Amino acid sequence: MGMIREKLRIKNQIIKDMLGEFLGTFFLVTFAVAASAQYVLTDLSSFLTLNFANGMGLVFGIYAAGGVSGASLNPSVSIALCLSGFIPWYKYPFYTVAQIAGAFTAAAVQYGVNYDMLNAYDGGNRTTYGPTATAGIFSTFPNPKVSTLNCFFDQVFGTFILAICILCILDKRNFMPLDKGLIPLSMGGIVFAIGTCWAGNCGYAINPARDLGPRLFTAVAGWGIEPFSYRNWQWFWIPIVGPMCGSTLAYIIYQLFIELHWTPLEPEPVDAIVVTANGTKEKSMELIGVDNHAFKSSKGEV
Amino acid sequence: MGMIREKLRIKNQIIKDMLGEFLGTFFLVTFAVAASAQYVLTDLSSFLTLNFANGMGLVFGIYAAGGVSGASLNPSVSIALCLSGFIPWYKYPFYTVAQIAGAFTAAAVQYGVNYDMLNAYDGGNRTTYGPTATAGIFSTFPNPKVSTLNCFFDQVFGTFILAICILCILDKRNFMPLDKGLIPLSMGGIVFAIGTCWAGNCGYAINPARDLGPRLFTAVAGWGIEPFSYRNWQWFWIPIVGPMCGSTLAYIIYQLFIELHWTPLEPEPVDAIVVTANGTKEKSMELIGVDNHAFKSSKGEV
Amino acid sequence: MGMIREKLRIKNQIIKDMLGEFLGTFFLVTFAVAASAQYVLTDLSSFLTLNFANGMGLVFGIYAAGGVSGASLNPSVSIALCLSGFIPWYKYPFYTVAQIAGAFTAAAVQYGVNYDMLNAYDGGNRTTYGPTATAGIFSTFPNPKVSTLNCFFDQVFGTFILAICILCILDKRNFMPLDKGLIPLSMGGIVFAIGTCWAGNCGYAINPARDLGPRLFTAVAGWGIEPFSYRNWQWFWIPIVGPMCGSTLAYIIYQLFIELHWTPLEPEPVDAIVVTANGTKEKSMELIGVDNHAFKSSKGEV
Amino acid sequence: MGMIREKLRIKNQIIKDMLGEFLGTFFLVTFAVAASAQYVLTDLSSFLTLNFANGMGLVFGIYAAGGVSGASLNPSVSIALCLSGFIPWYKYPFYTVAQIAGAFTAAAVQYGVNYDMLNAYDGGNRTTYGPTATAGIFSTFPNPKVSTLNCFFDQVFGTFILAICILCILDKRNFMPLDKGLIPLSMGGIVFAIGTCWAGNCGYAINPARDLGPRLFTAVAGWGIEPFSYRNWQWFWIPIVGPMCGSTLAYIIYQLFIELHWTPLEPEPVDAIVVTANGTKEKSMELIGVDNHAFKSSKGEV
Repeated sequence: MGMIREKLRIKNQIIKDMLGEFLGTFFLVTFAVAASAQYVLTDLSSFLTLNFANGMGLVFGIYAAGGVSGASLNPSVSIALCLSGFIPWYKYPFYTVAQIAGAFTAAAVQYGVNYDMLNAYDGGNRTTYGPTATAGIFSTFPNPKVSTLNCFFDQVFGTFILAICILCILDKRNFMPLDKGLIPLSMGGIVFAIGTCWAGNCGYAINPARDLGPRLFTAVAGWGIEPFSYRNWQWFWIPIVGPMCGSTLAYIIYQLFIELHWTPLEPEPVDAIVVTANGTKEKSMELIGVDNHAFKSSKGEV
Repeated sequence: MGMIREKLRIKNQIIKDMLGEFLGTFFLVTFAVAASAQYVLTDLSSFLTLNFANGMGLVFGIYAAGGVSGASLNPSVSIALCLSGFIPWYKYPFYTVAQIAGAFTAAAVQYGVNYDMLNAYDGGNRTTYGPTATAGIFSTFPNPKVSTLNCFFDQVFGTFILAICILCILDKRNFMPLDKGLIPLSMGGIVFAIGTCWAGNCGYAINPARDLGPRLFTAVAGWGIEPFSYRNWQWFWIPIVGPMCGSTLAYIIYQLFIELHWTPLEPEPVDAIVVTANGTKEKSMELIGVDNHAFKSSKGEV
Repeated sequence: MGMIREKLRIKNQIIKDMLGEFLGTFFLVTFAVAASAQYVLTDLSSFLTLNFANGMGLVFGIYAAGGVSGASLNPSVSIALCLSGFIPWYKYPFYTVAQIAGAFTAAAVQYGVNYDMLNAYDGGNRTTYGPTATAGIFSTFPNPKVSTLNCFFDQVFGTFILAICILCILDKRNFMPLDKGLIPLSMGGIVFAIGTCWAGNCGYAINPARDLGPRLFTAVAGWGIEPFSYRNWQWFWIPIVGPMCGSTLAYIIYQLFIELHWTPLEPEPVDAIVVTANGTKEKSMELIGVDNHAFKSSKGEV
Repeated sequence: MGMIREKLRIKNQIIKDMLGEFLGTFFLVTFAVAASAQYVLTDLSSFLTLNFANGMGLVFGIYAAGGVSGASLNPSVSIALCLSGFIPWYKYPFYTVAQIAGAFTAAAVQYGVNYDMLNAYDGGNRTTYGPTATAGIFSTFPNPKVSTLNCFFDQVFGTFILAICILCILDKRNFMPLDKGLIPLSMGGIVFAIGTCWAGNCGYAINPARDLGPRLFTAVAGWGIEPFSYRNWQWFWIPIVGPMCGSTLAYIIYQLFIELHWTPLEPEPVDAIVVTANGTKEKSMELIGVDNHAFKSSKGEV
């Protein structure tokens, strides 16, 4: 038993990180898609219910992966954390791949969990348009009244709010410290609150992986090209590009309004700076709760 | 007075554990059944209300029994905790009996609390089918659109989510530590969130005791055999067997994705391992908040 | 300024306690009555909203008085705390008077805050029966389908749940310790959860002061004797007597299932026992968060 | 890079404070206005959703500015904090200006985010009266049934509740201490709870900046003078003056009922008293979580 365990044990930190981001994003999207399905396919849910589920999905996604990879679970949040020095840049593409894969898998599993209800609702005819459209269960689609430009601005702004709130909470010099175990809850609270405020224009993807993964799934699982070609190909990229811009903006604004103006600290103690294998410095992940013991010991193996 | 207290004091840990699991599961099911009754019999509740009540029932069930028995309050969660070493296997049958008994008693008491409203609703005619069916107040029944196979998968998956979230939160190396006193709240949050996502197929029992106990009560209290014979005997066992599979799956997935890959710790300090009367080792219950003082002192008496 | 402050400073602990219980119960009932008014007089609220408000009222009531008097804010909870040794019995009548006075005052102030809306709703005709009845904004009334006996059992059971959850949370040996600052939140959670489960029979007063204070106010403020004579005088005393029985039952059940069976602690350290002026012993109020410094220093003056 | 950072760094504490209050109030009003827009312009929201959003807006506003300026984000709360000694009086006008500017900016940005939906709703015709009135998305308006006097009393009372709850939570001798990182959550809880109780008369501005800033924006952005001239100029000043009275009342009542009666502490240790540049004493901002390091080091520069 111990030997099997030892054989299965992965020592490469990047692979561990990817497993963490995969599982965490799987959780996040599992809750999000399942709640959408319950909202569309049954009369049990209200939109408030959906907001709660989206928030809780992030909470448990962070509990799942927080200690492994830091659990950004969102390529645009990862960007803000890279800019702030919490995640080294070389990890960024690995994180993104794992996040999209986790989101895709979650959509596939929920497709199975809701299979009979889905058939009862649309008679087996998977569509993106019309009265029994079900593509919206998996990925977001805009309100027809809202133009492409306004949608873009909406995704930029929604993700700006998400990312700047995260930066506020992770900035140790600002107010807190919030108990580490409560950080997931506060992060979930942000997503919940955004849903109560900015869902009307075009859903609130505010996460390229959460939107693209399930959209890819629908494209291969019977909905065809329409989830991508919707609105003459002028929609699907907005929940990808918009959030990237939004989180970059959040980093800039937070720097200008708050972070730059802290009285400079004495130099950080040596053990809070980790020089990685490829020579870049990074802040100790301790700041976002990553288990340093596991993290550091694998540095040499990256 | 002191003497009476001393006489009433139970020293056998297994009996203490059973009292704890009984009372905790009584709480859990009391909230669950009462909230269902308010949902069915009055127009005060929404489905969201019901989800809150189910979550809070678990919260207070854990506050009631957490320090005594660890408060799994759910035979399928107990399995995951046995697999992970939090609960020794020899206790498993005792826990299960106490949990089912607590659930049965809670259903009986709520039957009394809602007696007049129940009669006003169904005219004293207790039924499982039809427009004034009330069996669903006590135990779960599937949506007619959903096949037996899909229901089974639903219960496996729902309990998988419940159990893997619990394992994430109890894994001390993963992110946290969440303040002990907040663990009940986070556990309740999982149940709440599952209700917002996976109630559409067949309710969300995700707990064999929570479902079987009240179902047994209805069978003896006037609803007859129908709560069991429903759907040609192809339903009642699903919320029993499905959760068992789901929590086992959760254990396996958590091992493969996260737990196996932690950098091995130095050997656990001696006092964190407890050798029980029958020679098996178990992790210190400290991990899930059990009062070690009481726990250890009774080891010899089991 | 300092002199005026010194003049106004009250040194008698019983009067301080009464001010605390008065203010705390004022908060509790202010939220409860205001939320009922918004539920009845506008279309902004749902029943879930009302439950939240009732819970939050208790939360802020405890924040207001917790450090002064322990903030039971409820004569039936006070009984459970007296039985458990948290509050000395001689204080009980003082607490009760302050609680009822606080509840009465809260009802009066809310009458003012809602004066115009109330008139718009009932045309100035304050009634307990009929389509524009408004007495139910202030105190509870039963569902006509539910008999007096069932109502009584309902109030016993609801308060049993409230009081036993409180005892679980205050029992330092059981699971926790919950962070002191979060105890108000968990208490509020209980009230919220009870509202989602046991409001259908006869509201959920579960607090003699919360119900009697506003009922007295309506009797003198224009509703006449009907709030008391309702159902041939067979109602008004139920939310008074039922809760008293329920919390006593909670104390007994908690003793039998949990508290009696803890491994006896070594004798409590001397400074945790306080011998009061009239010779009774009481547990340190530290347990429920009372400021011991203030508490002890006034012992001699009681 | 480091040089640019150094150049952009602001050292004047008042300007830092103003940036903090601006950003925090921007957050607060962003959530409030966006949630109102979603409530009015779509059918996704309920009034409960709106209450949640208002509460969460305060939570994240405090996370944004708590460590910089203490995050009162509300001129009436600032008054209560000045009276209690948490904020020195000379800062008051600077705070107020920053708060109103933040609120104005938030309204302007949300106008952009909701531009297409707004046009679809009112056809580009911005009005304060009538079936497609949209001024109420930005600032509050009273229920026509409620008189000016009753509205005034409502705003006094609502802010009284807000401010006295804040004073309870910040009073270190009363019950708590609540974990610093949870103070924002409890503050948000107050706003949420007030919305569930006192929104029926005239919304629940309970914050002069939150109401005046967006009202100014509507006046310049196409709604004209009507947001101010509404009800013959007898409305717009009520959510400004009422809250000021309410928070002053809260200070007085809290003094009389609780604060005056604490057993006097031994003199505060020297480092908890900060003598400011203009000779007034103030309590250490530590009490409300302000980063003392940054705070003190700038004292000489004010």
